[in-house]
Amino acid sequence: MSVTFPKGFLANGIHCGVKKEGLDLGLLISTCIAKASGMFTTNQVKSPSVVITSERLRSGVLKGIIANSGCANACTGEQGFLDAEVILNELGSLLNEEPKLLGIASTGVIGKRLPVDNILKGLPVLVSGLSKEAGTLFERAIMTTDRVPKEVQASFFYNGATVRIGACAKGSGMIHPNLATLLCFITTDIEIDKALLKMALQSAVNVSLNAITIDKDMSTNDSVVIMANGKASNIEIKNKDEKGFLLFRDALKEVMIELAKKIAKDGEGAEKLIEVEVIGTEDEEQAIRMARAVVGSNLFKSAVWGKEINWGRIMSALGANSDTFDPQKVSIFFGDVKLVENGVGIEFDEHRVIKILEGKEVPIKIIVGEGKSRGKAWGCDLTPDYVFINGSYLS
Amino acid sequence: MSVTFPKGFLANGIHCGVKKEGLDLGLLISTCIAKASGMFTTNQVKSPSVVITSERLRSGVLKGIIANSGCANACTGEQGFLDAEVILNELGSLLNEEPKLLGIASTGVIGKRLPVDNILKGLPVLVSGLSKEAGTLFERAIMTTDRVPKEVQASFFYNGATVRIGACAKGSGMIHPNLATLLCFITTDIEIDKALLKMALQSAVNVSLNAITIDKDMSTNDSVVIMANGKASNIEIKNKDEKGFLLFRDALKEVMIELAKKIAKDGEGAEKLIEVEVIGTEDEEQAIRMARAVVGSNLFKSAVWGKEINWGRIMSALGANSDTFDPQKVSIFFGDVKLVENGVGIEFDEHRVIKILEGKEVPIKIIVGEGKSRGKAWGCDLTPDYVFINGSYLS
Repeated sequence: MSVTFPKGFLANGIHCGVKKEGLDLGLLISTCIAKASGMFTTNQVKSPSVVITSERLRSGVLKGIIANSGCANACTGEQGFLDAEVILNELGSLLNEEPKLLGIASTGVIGKRLPVDNILKGLPVLVSGLSKEAGTLFERAIMTTDRVPKEVQASFFYNGATVRIGACAKGSGMIHPNLATLLCFITTDIEIDKALLKMALQSAVNVSLNAITIDKDMSTNDSVVIMANGKASNIEIKNKDEKGFLLFRDALKEVMIELAKKIAKDGEGAEKLIEVEVIGTEDEEQAIRMARAVVGSNLFKSAVWGKEINWGRIMSALGANSDTFDPQKVSIFFGDVKLVENGVGIEFDEHRVIKILEGKEVPIKIIVGEGKSRGKAWGCDLTPDYVFINGSYLS
Repeated sequence: MSVTFPKGFLANGIHCGVKKEGLDLGLLISTCIAKASGMFTTNQVKSPSVVITSERLRSGVLKGIIANSGCANACTGEQGFLDAEVILNELGSLLNEEPKLLGIASTGVIGKRLPVDNILKGLPVLVSGLSKEAGTLFERAIMTTDRVPKEVQASFFYNGATVRIGACAKGSGMIHPNLATLLCFITTDIEIDKALLKMALQSAVNVSLNAITIDKDMSTNDSVVIMANGKASNIEIKNKDEKGFLLFRDALKEVMIELAKKIAKDGEGAEKLIEVEVIGTEDEEQAIRMARAVVGSNLFKSAVWGKEINWGRIMSALGANSDTFDPQKVSIFFGDVKLVENGVGIEFDEHRVIKILEGKEVPIKIIVGEGKSRGKAWGCDLTPDYVFINGSYLS
């Protein structure tokens, strides 16, 4: 269900011919107008789909969003804007809604036009099939090289109301988000002030999607959109200090972190999830940046794939990052085994470390100083399959 | 000959047991005290070998440098300094020279101590075998995963004197230099002022070693050292506007660019050299940064390996870099075939582009605006072999 888990959300996904085969067109709507917020790629090259949706979100409300895989609608110039508008206008009339209340998200090959005719032909089927159950079709329709759909849901009880959150994402390559990741949709039935919704989204994205990297390549199409339709019927949350907001913010954070880990784990060609925690920094942002520098190192990622205990590549990656630290204060742990103390290698049980490297999830902990903050980042191993996948992406 | 091509330089390379097999210890000396300058990694984690050599170069003179492969002497703490000092002191007494006039460079695995005993035992053989011819042994002794030795030489005639320049380098992985690349030694017999020598080195490094990337991983041991011993007997060059300096600076630039291209071409697992030229920027530095962002993209590199025409990944990499530009002004050429105009794909002859991608050297040209400057960067394709090599580096 994921994105249709909260009350008042419907979705669907179909094949319409953007890709040769497989689901490639999805639609997610709220049954009433929802408060909404979004975060988008900071890449200077932006898909018209990104530009249009981010502009429409300035109003702070959204009725629904259409998403396609197989074509990024990026580097398509003025035509890319016209193509997206035509689709949104037609969708508006089918839904009997203002097109301005609809967003669009695209993912896939850069530099090709959306196959507008195929999409327009698919729209009536897409709309007529909207349902709660078809939430799973939506999350499949946005997949490209993803091996598995990625969804998370959560709920909490507050002041007599059950608040639900659902989220799904696609993303497997070109993942080094700076504000957002490829495509991520979050729904909730909470009744909440627009500014608080935005604040909760930003704080969740900073410790989740902004804390993963698969290949250090930032996409032209990164989009995260959250819609809150108030169907939970809680008393509207208006104050950032009230308990309801804190509950919501923390639940959203948990949901987004789970989703981010699923994305990292499903990185193109990946066999392992790598979690790097950095401890002892001045603030959380610094810890996340340092952790992401380690988990983004091609050399370290290759070593993890080969189950090699090469902690020197962790030191090198930390040192190449711009956050300053004292190398002589660094300790490094693989799992709970300490390998480095005061920046120098110490004796350790190789068998235990190899066992950790053989696991599906490899946890690394790095103490870099005496600061009070810590932060985590996630990524995956670099495998020959990553190269095979990306050496034959267009064929 | 390379580093022993200029007058008054001798070298040697032997196996002493830092590595299991193959040459692993090299020595390069000038027959008289040479003016010298160096550039070193900006990684915060620095090998004691780097720290010691950069400190000694403050005097602006050097007699010689010893270099080992197989062990980086990095993350070795205080012991790493003691180990290097012991080696340099013993070398000094064998050469009958002040140890302060000797430098050390190390490359290989991070986190392991230098095998001091093996090196000390090897020193007498290393010193007694010094010759012009053994320059080729020196350049082999510094190799790690390099498949081929990398050397360049050049000469020019000025004011009745022939000035010679020789250079060699090692480097195949952990290559994303910021000031220098892994190990690079340059010799020249020019008579030149110390400050001018340093100026010529910096300007050459900026457009050569600082313009390549293999895996975006910056080393702890990057070192470039130049020695100028005056044996060419030219009238000392003292003014940055005189013709002799311009000739030397340009010759050095050419030598370093050739060397940088050889390093990029021999990147770990690489099958192709990729040359990216960016045209139309405000200054050369910006053009080089943008070119290096493209040639450093894992996705673009994988596409080149797979001979896929994926120019969208070039746009994405340009946009993710921090230098601002107008995507609508971008043109992209593979060889002399234009694929993108005003930021949008145009029709082109696919067969001609595939032919270009099938070559050993893939030239990409990108126009990003109307600025007067241009710059080049070099890298290589990302191949499954890169992962195989770095997944079994320690074994």
